[in-house]
Amino acid sequence: MLTTDRFLEEIKKKIQDQKRILTKEADRYSYAYDASFGFHLPDLVIQPPATEEVAAVMKLANTYKVPVYPRGQGTSLSGGPLPVKGGVVLDLSQWNDKLEIDKDDMVAVVSPGVLTAKIDEAATEFGFMYPPDPSSSHVSTIGGNLAENAGGPRGLKYGVTKDYVLGLEVVTPEGEVIRTGGRTVKNVTGYDLTKLVVGSEGTLGIITEATLRLVPKPPATKTLMALFEEIVDSGRAISKVLTAGIVPAKMELMDQLSIQAVEAYEPRGLPTDVAAMLLIELDGHPASVAEEILKVKDLCSEVGARDVRVAENEKEAAEFWKARKLVSPAIVRVKPTKISEDATVPRSKIPDMFQRLKEIREKYQIDLVVFGHAGDGNLHPNIIADARDHEEMERVEKAVAEIFTAAIELGGTLSGEHGIGTMKSPFMEMELGKAGLEMMKRIKASWDPNNILNPGKIFPEPGQRLVLRHD
Amino acid sequence: MLTTDRFLEEIKKKIQDQKRILTKEADRYSYAYDASFGFHLPDLVIQPPATEEVAAVMKLANTYKVPVYPRGQGTSLSGGPLPVKGGVVLDLSQWNDKLEIDKDDMVAVVSPGVLTAKIDEAATEFGFMYPPDPSSSHVSTIGGNLAENAGGPRGLKYGVTKDYVLGLEVVTPEGEVIRTGGRTVKNVTGYDLTKLVVGSEGTLGIITEATLRLVPKPPATKTLMALFEEIVDSGRAISKVLTAGIVPAKMELMDQLSIQAVEAYEPRGLPTDVAAMLLIELDGHPASVAEEILKVKDLCSEVGARDVRVAENEKEAAEFWKARKLVSPAIVRVKPTKISEDATVPRSKIPDMFQRLKEIREKYQIDLVVFGHAGDGNLHPNIIADARDHEEMERVEKAVAEIFTAAIELGGTLSGEHGIGTMKSPFMEMELGKAGLEMMKRIKASWDPNNILNPGKIFPEPGQRLVLRHD
Repeated sequence: MLTTDRFLEEIKKKIQDQKRILTKEADRYSYAYDASFGFHLPDLVIQPPATEEVAAVMKLANTYKVPVYPRGQGTSLSGGPLPVKGGVVLDLSQWNDKLEIDKDDMVAVVSPGVLTAKIDEAATEFGFMYPPDPSSSHVSTIGGNLAENAGGPRGLKYGVTKDYVLGLEVVTPEGEVIRTGGRTVKNVTGYDLTKLVVGSEGTLGIITEATLRLVPKPPATKTLMALFEEIVDSGRAISKVLTAGIVPAKMELMDQLSIQAVEAYEPRGLPTDVAAMLLIELDGHPASVAEEILKVKDLCSEVGARDVRVAENEKEAAEFWKARKLVSPAIVRVKPTKISEDATVPRSKIPDMFQRLKEIREKYQIDLVVFGHAGDGNLHPNIIADARDHEEMERVEKAVAEIFTAAIELGGTLSGEHGIGTMKSPFMEMELGKAGLEMMKRIKASWDPNNILNPGKIFPEPGQRLVLRHD
Repeated sequence: MLTTDRFLEEIKKKIQDQKRILTKEADRYSYAYDASFGFHLPDLVIQPPATEEVAAVMKLANTYKVPVYPRGQGTSLSGGPLPVKGGVVLDLSQWNDKLEIDKDDMVAVVSPGVLTAKIDEAATEFGFMYPPDPSSSHVSTIGGNLAENAGGPRGLKYGVTKDYVLGLEVVTPEGEVIRTGGRTVKNVTGYDLTKLVVGSEGTLGIITEATLRLVPKPPATKTLMALFEEIVDSGRAISKVLTAGIVPAKMELMDQLSIQAVEAYEPRGLPTDVAAMLLIELDGHPASVAEEILKVKDLCSEVGARDVRVAENEKEAAEFWKARKLVSPAIVRVKPTKISEDATVPRSKIPDMFQRLKEIREKYQIDLVVFGHAGDGNLHPNIIADARDHEEMERVEKAVAEIFTAAIELGGTLSGEHGIGTMKSPFMEMELGKAGLEMMKRIKASWDPNNILNPGKIFPEPGQRLVLRHD
């Protein structure tokens, strides 16, 4: 056990509610997983409900050299909260007592354990919205969304989590409490620690409070579905729409295999012989949305869409979106293990990326479906496999590595929104180069000299390779 | 002379075009100033037109321990490019050979010396726009805008410079070349070095190329002018508009003294007895803009505006904006020295800030006018004085310190968009606290161990105070 008795004794003095210290194996067990791969049992789980307690834990952890792993609801797809070196998991999911909306400043102030969907719900009452939604906002915490800089389908028009963070309260790896940013949209007082900590995957600090920017909720939305016989035509449609001065709230793509999987799982009458389907949602003023949706329809037809349908009402729009939502449950029916990637390419390279993915699928004989946020180039190649089949998983590992290589060769990035965690760290140098990675490491070392906070993430260990096999 | 002969000799070997090395005092003289305060003659000016040359200069500067000061067009209001410790000024304003627009990816790729207005001009040809404009975009370089994270009147709806940067090529303080981010809107591969370097005021790296996000140009704009007899009513108008679901492109405020200054300078028929004037610009789809401008008009009237006028056409809109543009030239007619501040408060605190500014004006008997970007709380209190009057400047120094204190006490920030530079560094700890400042210093020390790049900025020297007097 990494955490000495002495450390535990000291922790008990600092945590007011002793029920918030979990030591039994049965209690610790569920903290050994997240939504990615690997099993790592922590020695101790603490559920602090206050900044001072987080700070006290970090100070003790530095004294006793015990690793600390902050965690929200554990929905991470990249291993963010996994306690790979044992030690303490800091469960922040219970700390959800603050959710304040300030109408005049148009901000929300929240504790880390608040579910992201609750923020948007609370904003709605004032006519506002909190746009970022990684499609899991009803189960994921804002703390986790902040740590990972969560994205989602609204990225193209509304940006990602980082674009909505004005200020943070952060406990540093050594247990100091700092406040970054503030309540204003404009702030250039020193380095932007807010945007450095957001997306640092819990390696640079523990977010104990966040001030989030809200925006007026657009009064109208319209959805359109377009079907294409060639992937490249769907890419041209996206480009045509954007250069026509229209920025959709969402532009989602499903490839043929995604459509086929959905139709096999829960038939919705989608044609299974098309190469791609685009779902486009516009939002804004009713007059502009009504006019623009017709323009989008024309543009899709112009570039050769086989069929374009505008949803007549909200019910029909929800029906269209249901197909997209069914992709994930549908594909895990094929095989139990889903490796969800988020390699992202510049929008113009989407057709090339599809070609590369097709080659990878054939080369390694894997089940690979592609869907995702095509408007911002953030595709989700998903590989379906069976983790118990070692031979298959070996092919999958090689295929994943080639997907990353393809994304980077096409001018893209390893990760658009899932984060690096443990899954992608072996590939960091390929994208960033030695010098780029070195500058990141310097920041980590200067903030966390004892390497206490979420060690084993982002930065590859010497010789580390991607392993998806459970042994 | 800080730069030894040996250093100069080595520099000459690395810079291809010897005309780009300026050693004569007459040539160096204009690099001793920017648009803020102070005169610091550099020992040497280099105008490198290539990344390798910048990297070579930084490597030599580390070897010989010579400070290096990157500079664009020197329009900084906070002392960003001033060579306060002598050494080399790296003039990047001549390096303007690259300005490429990629229509499909909706990005611009630019060299650091390109004037910011040229980027927007080039984008317009494709139906796009580059929104950030610190109101000096026709004379300031994108490199300077990036270094300072320039803001401007469009902050409320469109954000600031940082919100448009997807990727950078950066020469580190030790002369390594790194690439941060990329060409995609979504990128969570490691720490966000892009947003760390942007706004770091040239202390963490020299930006040698930037990839900027463009957005579709809105097809229509409408402008409205509203006059208020009470400052607090103008604040209520702003709040009403935003909570009605309308996000104007600009929401500018001029106080009574600003209006009076303009009327004295170039009469435009504005009533000089109102407490405040709001200029509101909407942009977007023609139908929504036409409807929303009427709604804004009603909302302004509801909260007690004395008069609200919607510009009938573009010519009249330009007339309205002319008044705002005339504020700066008008006020320097009163006295020659203008201290332009940008202390920013949460939007709801604008009326309180006005009250505090009124008290400061009376206490120190200074000429203080207030105008600025009220929609995002980014006011510009401008003090008009005569730098040759030492007694007056002493009062001004004290007043400026109190303006900063007021902004921070109201939950705001020292600087919304001008940067810290030399002017505001003495006040950093007041906003950030000791621990917050320490975390910034750690980043600087880890990236620039010899403190070579833009030393003397952002971080206060022991005992440093604000001095606006030239002795």
